[in-house]
Amino acid sequence: MSLDRSTLRWNGWGPLRHEDAFARNNALWRFLGTALGGVELPATPATPLANCRLASPVLAFGDISPFQTAGCDVAIDAADRAFHARGDSYRDLLALRAGHLDPLPDAIVYPKSAEACRGAIQAANAADIAVVPFGGGTSVVGGVSPLRGSHRAVVAIDTTKMDRLLSVDKESMVATAEAGIYGPDLEQRLNAEGVMLGHFPQSFEFSTLGGWIAARGAGQQSNRYGKAEHWLVSARLATPAGAWSTEGYPASAAGARLTDLVAGSEGTLGIITDATFALHECPAARDYRAYLFRSFAAGREAVREIVQAGIPAASLRLSDEDETHFFGALGRLQAPPKFKSRIEDSYLKLRGFGGAKCAMITGAEGDAELVAYARSRIASIARKHGGLSVGTSPADRWFKGRFHGPYLRDPLMDRGLGVDTLETATSWSNLKRLYDAVRAALLDAMKANAGVAGGRGICLAHISHSYVDGASLYFTYVWPRARGGLDAEIAQWTAIKSAASDAIAANGGTISHHHGAGTDHAKWMAAEKGPVSMEVLRALKSALDPKGIMNPGKLGL
Amino acid sequence: MSLDRSTLRWNGWGPLRHEDAFARNNALWRFLGTALGGVELPATPATPLANCRLASPVLAFGDISPFQTAGCDVAIDAADRAFHARGDSYRDLLALRAGHLDPLPDAIVYPKSAEACRGAIQAANAADIAVVPFGGGTSVVGGVSPLRGSHRAVVAIDTTKMDRLLSVDKESMVATAEAGIYGPDLEQRLNAEGVMLGHFPQSFEFSTLGGWIAARGAGQQSNRYGKAEHWLVSARLATPAGAWSTEGYPASAAGARLTDLVAGSEGTLGIITDATFALHECPAARDYRAYLFRSFAAGREAVREIVQAGIPAASLRLSDEDETHFFGALGRLQAPPKFKSRIEDSYLKLRGFGGAKCAMITGAEGDAELVAYARSRIASIARKHGGLSVGTSPADRWFKGRFHGPYLRDPLMDRGLGVDTLETATSWSNLKRLYDAVRAALLDAMKANAGVAGGRGICLAHISHSYVDGASLYFTYVWPRARGGLDAEIAQWTAIKSAASDAIAANGGTISHHHGAGTDHAKWMAAEKGPVSMEVLRALKSALDPKGIMNPGKLGL
Repeated sequence: MSLDRSTLRWNGWGPLRHEDAFARNNALWRFLGTALGGVELPATPATPLANCRLASPVLAFGDISPFQTAGCDVAIDAADRAFHARGDSYRDLLALRAGHLDPLPDAIVYPKSAEACRGAIQAANAADIAVVPFGGGTSVVGGVSPLRGSHRAVVAIDTTKMDRLLSVDKESMVATAEAGIYGPDLEQRLNAEGVMLGHFPQSFEFSTLGGWIAARGAGQQSNRYGKAEHWLVSARLATPAGAWSTEGYPASAAGARLTDLVAGSEGTLGIITDATFALHECPAARDYRAYLFRSFAAGREAVREIVQAGIPAASLRLSDEDETHFFGALGRLQAPPKFKSRIEDSYLKLRGFGGAKCAMITGAEGDAELVAYARSRIASIARKHGGLSVGTSPADRWFKGRFHGPYLRDPLMDRGLGVDTLETATSWSNLKRLYDAVRAALLDAMKANAGVAGGRGICLAHISHSYVDGASLYFTYVWPRARGGLDAEIAQWTAIKSAASDAIAANGGTISHHHGAGTDHAKWMAAEKGPVSMEVLRALKSALDPKGIMNPGKLGL
Repeated sequence: MSLDRSTLRWNGWGPLRHEDAFARNNALWRFLGTALGGVELPATPATPLANCRLASPVLAFGDISPFQTAGCDVAIDAADRAFHARGDSYRDLLALRAGHLDPLPDAIVYPKSAEACRGAIQAANAADIAVVPFGGGTSVVGGVSPLRGSHRAVVAIDTTKMDRLLSVDKESMVATAEAGIYGPDLEQRLNAEGVMLGHFPQSFEFSTLGGWIAARGAGQQSNRYGKAEHWLVSARLATPAGAWSTEGYPASAAGARLTDLVAGSEGTLGIITDATFALHECPAARDYRAYLFRSFAAGREAVREIVQAGIPAASLRLSDEDETHFFGALGRLQAPPKFKSRIEDSYLKLRGFGGAKCAMITGAEGDAELVAYARSRIASIARKHGGLSVGTSPADRWFKGRFHGPYLRDPLMDRGLGVDTLETATSWSNLKRLYDAVRAALLDAMKANAGVAGGRGICLAHISHSYVDGASLYFTYVWPRARGGLDAEIAQWTAIKSAASDAIAANGGTISHHHGAGTDHAKWMAAEKGPVSMEVLRALKSALDPKGIMNPGKLGL
């Protein structure tokens, strides 16, 4: 694997020693305390691993050796079990930081090839051991929690030692790679051949090809490169029923395309061992720039028109008033405005952008002619909806910091703050209703469950991905953490999350656009799919995993 | 329904009395006879319905009344049973024209609403009656053959009385319509609102929305508007397990998207009662034009580059040398070349296009700027690959005649000729291998099975639909029909079809790109999907149709 896991946080994001840009920025913490209702921000550090009690693994030597015989490394040490104890959801972090690591996987199994992975699944199936597929482990919906279901033990099968790029077909613009390859490693190897996949989720640095597919993920340039279900050409899975290869044609009418069942399967059918995916030329040109709109509604209409006119944008990201304001304020707190910026501010006020305003980041990537075409059409549509071009620098800043979001969670959680994100999608005609309802639900629930007298939450939102028929909404929300220990904190988070999820379900949104369902969304997913679809999913699972060993409890299966 | 079935041929294509443009064109028939090895072309007329013996229906009054109670019309007359006896494959036509109509549906059930359709399925399920879903009935792969499987009777459920446009959401650019609406009726009603679906298969005039989805069809402008699986947003089905509504979000990560299982289901899971699909503005501009390439390989590279560069073409159709030559010759036989054409010919020879050449029809549709952008980029890429622009007239002629192909089959079959088409798809890097293999297999098999001494076949091919990772190939082939009756003719067709299908399977193609699998492709589909995928399909069917009454024998299920 291309990352040394021992250098990474087992209970947070990224390397053990990454720089905390905000540690000594007292102005920032004062600003946040005020925004959250004038609350104090106490130190709330995480429990070190040495102080955590880990339940002993239940597996005997006789259970371990079949995995080794199949060609897998097996680990049972505390550090490895802790790393595989949870994903990266807020609830996961609450538990890890409190030192409550149970349930833990009884062992970590590292197949070094697809064949070894198939052997490991067969061994687990024969021995009644539940399997949790684990790539980068960045699930934010409880997708890698080591639940054993009705089985006698549970192992994590970690795919990151299956990380070879197997083939690149530049004529057909497809490549095949093993599923455990990390994002940067994959792109680097593809770039060396002049091509790219172009899947850049916020977790890009620490997530894997297989995880992107299993969770039906989306990258920040998905308008051009597609979500996982769009760029996935075919997959091979190790399932309890045997090796399963899905169709690999550019298009076919020979029955349904079962490849589509792999994207979003979240390890419940088997482990993706390798996948074939669409490539693009490394873009000869890139143009990222920002526009300001007088309202979220005006910006939304611009995004809709750009997408529906078939303009080849790579990114269209429209922040609501609060997100635009908040990130503007954050920027100022990091670097106080210079004279030039103050002049710009006056100009904006003159043009009617003094109060509420919404920033849109637009991006185009490809050959020079395509980028020129996209840029000019985006500009004219933005103008038509009252958008004011504010140049390339805000967009360049966004582009440079596009993987930085998750790094903020650890320092926020160290300072008594809760932070979570959620996302949904709906049709254009329903977007306002959904946005209003989820935002209101989050703000109400954060206030009602503040945990600190007078406390309230902050809710920021943006349109992150857009389609001809609708768009996704991405919410980031911060609140003062409850006092009184883990149970109180989980209850607080559950109340907020449930309020938002209920609002999504009641207002025509999907419970997830790209995070997946895992355990946290299972209840809402079942309601969203309906009883007949859930019966179909159970039938599918039953065909491939008759004993139910694959990732029990996920997707409600 | 918008078409009066009594005006349509029950054993051929289109209206009973459509003009046969070739009837008195002796030059054409001489040309064809020569091309096929100097064979004579005898009159081989179809058997009139009055001379056919129809087996009596096995259903009693008590079997019929539950369908009526559910809100369906029921027909058992000979004309209606004959119309529903087969689809439009060559094998279907052979049987119909010979007067061999068995098996026949025992009744035709016409639900007038989704609710009535659900009632009909429940009634059939309760009474052990197999159901063949029937829309326009234009399947060319045996998809509507009334096989009863192990059940005691079989009814066709004809959807064409469910033909309402239910809603149009111009903000989200989606509409919902009942599945039995015919193509022209659907587009006319959408066009009245300024929008379109843009699905124009060759069968457009006589096929339905539900059929397009069930067979994973493709229209001739699918580069822009997508195949059925791309424009399908959600579907509602009547299944033996109850009403099934699939997800309707622009994108979701809440498990796999089960909507994807509906496209290509060919009635084996249930009947699509209504569907929501993507819309486009009626194009403000259209540009169709033709280019000539010195070889199929050069044209193929142009198509590949256009698609991989993300140029928004609506159609890219590249004919091989024989197809270009043949249609050129056909055109001359219909309208002898004028002086201007002869000058053009001389010019082409001068430029090196005198011998082998391949015609490419390109089309762009959308707003004026998009069309201008697409047109200019297509032109420059075509030039780069040696393409010579031959203007808009050949493309306009193609556009005007784009639904005419199937009308030629009846006159050909009346004159002792067999004619069939097949299509496949593969990756760009495998396209030449597949093209060569299928073409050789067809030519060899037509010669080996000529049925007339010295007879041979004609094989024409084009790239019809293209993708970033590959393209489809469409073959049209004509041969002298065997003498000696229906069995000999079916044996001849089977030998030719099997040779081509085996060549597809052995050379990395899918057995169908947009015709579907039905009965004729079931064997190759099973091999293509593999045993695990077939097990998954059986599990799916079992969940929704436990007694197996839905379209038995199709897709090998």
